[in-house]
Amino acid sequence: MNESKKPSVVVIGGGTGMPVLLRGLKKYPIELSALVTVADDGGSTGRLRSEMDIPATGDIRNVIASLSEAEPMLLELFQHRFKKGNGLSGHAMGNLLLAAISSINGDFYKGIREVSRVLNVKGNIYPISNEPVTLHARLEDGTIVSGESSIPHAHAPIHSVFVTPENARPLPEAMTAIEEADLIVISPGSLYTSILPNIIIPHIKEAIHRSHAHVAYVCNVMTQAGETTGYTASDHIQAIFDHIGYHTVQSIIVHNESISEHSRELYAEENAALVEYDIDRLRSFGLNIIEDDIIDHEESTLRHDAEKVAKLLYTFVCEEDE
Amino acid sequence: MNESKKPSVVVIGGGTGMPVLLRGLKKYPIELSALVTVADDGGSTGRLRSEMDIPATGDIRNVIASLSEAEPMLLELFQHRFKKGNGLSGHAMGNLLLAAISSINGDFYKGIREVSRVLNVKGNIYPISNEPVTLHARLEDGTIVSGESSIPHAHAPIHSVFVTPENARPLPEAMTAIEEADLIVISPGSLYTSILPNIIIPHIKEAIHRSHAHVAYVCNVMTQAGETTGYTASDHIQAIFDHIGYHTVQSIIVHNESISEHSRELYAEENAALVEYDIDRLRSFGLNIIEDDIIDHEESTLRHDAEKVAKLLYTFVCEEDE
Repeated sequence: MNESKKPSVVVIGGGTGMPVLLRGLKKYPIELSALVTVADDGGSTGRLRSEMDIPATGDIRNVIASLSEAEPMLLELFQHRFKKGNGLSGHAMGNLLLAAISSINGDFYKGIREVSRVLNVKGNIYPISNEPVTLHARLEDGTIVSGESSIPHAHAPIHSVFVTPENARPLPEAMTAIEEADLIVISPGSLYTSILPNIIIPHIKEAIHRSHAHVAYVCNVMTQAGETTGYTASDHIQAIFDHIGYHTVQSIIVHNESISEHSRELYAEENAALVEYDIDRLRSFGLNIIEDDIIDHEESTLRHDAEKVAKLLYTFVCEEDE
Repeated sequence: MNESKKPSVVVIGGGTGMPVLLRGLKKYPIELSALVTVADDGGSTGRLRSEMDIPATGDIRNVIASLSEAEPMLLELFQHRFKKGNGLSGHAMGNLLLAAISSINGDFYKGIREVSRVLNVKGNIYPISNEPVTLHARLEDGTIVSGESSIPHAHAPIHSVFVTPENARPLPEAMTAIEEADLIVISPGSLYTSILPNIIIPHIKEAIHRSHAHVAYVCNVMTQAGETTGYTASDHIQAIFDHIGYHTVQSIIVHNESISEHSRELYAEENAALVEYDIDRLRSFGLNIIEDDIIDHEESTLRHDAEKVAKLLYTFVCEEDE
């Protein structure tokens, strides 16, 4: 690593897990880049992408909000969701802004950069593709389910996921960020519908292979119905390896404490349970294992603790630096 | 006038005429306030006001844009109109922003102030009412037509207009602005549907009566089908006097030149013609008449020349100052 510049950290993901990580990491003296999925096709995002022919905005919007240093009122406006209005109800203001500015610029990524500038975003945000992509899952029984939002509803074990168009091209800036990264973080989040959709893009997968970065995976704390039911920590890693190859991840950060009975019951209602921390199999993968109590105990919904996880991740670039 | 402070100018109106005036006036060292109609019920604005129960946003949006010193890209975004999207198509981004921020704040005026701050607006913008109001026209034949956008479509001579609720209350800040003004400008624009809806609000009318300000009316250059067909300049003044009383206007600014044959033909297709400048009847009203070539000859649509009109208006506060 060039000692004269700040370490480069690339976080890859989407959903609700990624913004938590970014909120923690943005406080560190690093060059931070977020590579964000655009495969979502549900809700406000889904309506916009089909009506306006743009990549999915929702995950990008949440990442912008997490990295923005704009005043709270502006962020509240950006994240505001219309509750009334024919055709408007359910739309998030930020999605509409991203759609409008993309339409003005004729370019989704340029729109993201403009919004990022206005909202004083710390770091670089790259959509994993500048064109709409569709996610498909091949279930264990061979069935193909198409569309990100449909996949969990199949409620069947997933064999693998893939995107179309197959030649979806990442932004050159995103490729460079991966290739020059000191640390690549695979974010927690819906494994098959938020995380893998990024790293399975052929050019991204190859860039990860080429990169000299340390690759760390922040493992989910809870399983997710329709995606990772019954998955242990090592099953998550196995899914990543199955999609992008063995030895692509060097470290895993796992939660090693229990969760409250209350949380356990709430998640049980959604057929979700604590991800079992199966240390022996993780070790057999040759992984560097970082275990800690990494959840935010003050939140009613289980979330990673932004501060704790960021601190753990930062040690990777500090160590590399020595 | 207190010599230690800048002269206060209040512009009252709506539509497309008002922003032109404001764009010119904002360059002068004056305390500028815009009192803007919220009676519109057509288009994007009409859909939002009925679906979200907020005052009309469209005229306010254009005034914000005219007084904003934000960068062009932001203004383009603010004025962007969606061309696609079920329920979104036709909506102006700025209208959606105003609706969202009003919903967050639970207050329309507070929303306007927040957006004004973000977009670096020079001057004060007051909706003529902070609650939705409905405009009604009593036609010469006694028929009542309700709804701003329906009035011109009646294609019949208008006797008078009124709003409901009858006790619509202007903002205290707007009242103060009128009462403390050095100059009140009644803007050009749709006479019955953009201009009169403001000054007929009882409290506004009374505040104009109480104010020591010089009141100037910038007369329309063209007549408007369904509103002012065949109106001379003095007919416009007569309509104002009929609604808010004689001697409420001291000066009129009129266009004293012809228009191009091309413009004449274009307007003739919309049953609009040059407003006849009937100086004798205007004089009989005891008005101070300022006549000049005040249109922008570089625009294809006839518009007042922002620079010229602002310069003429500024002489009022300079003269007052002596």
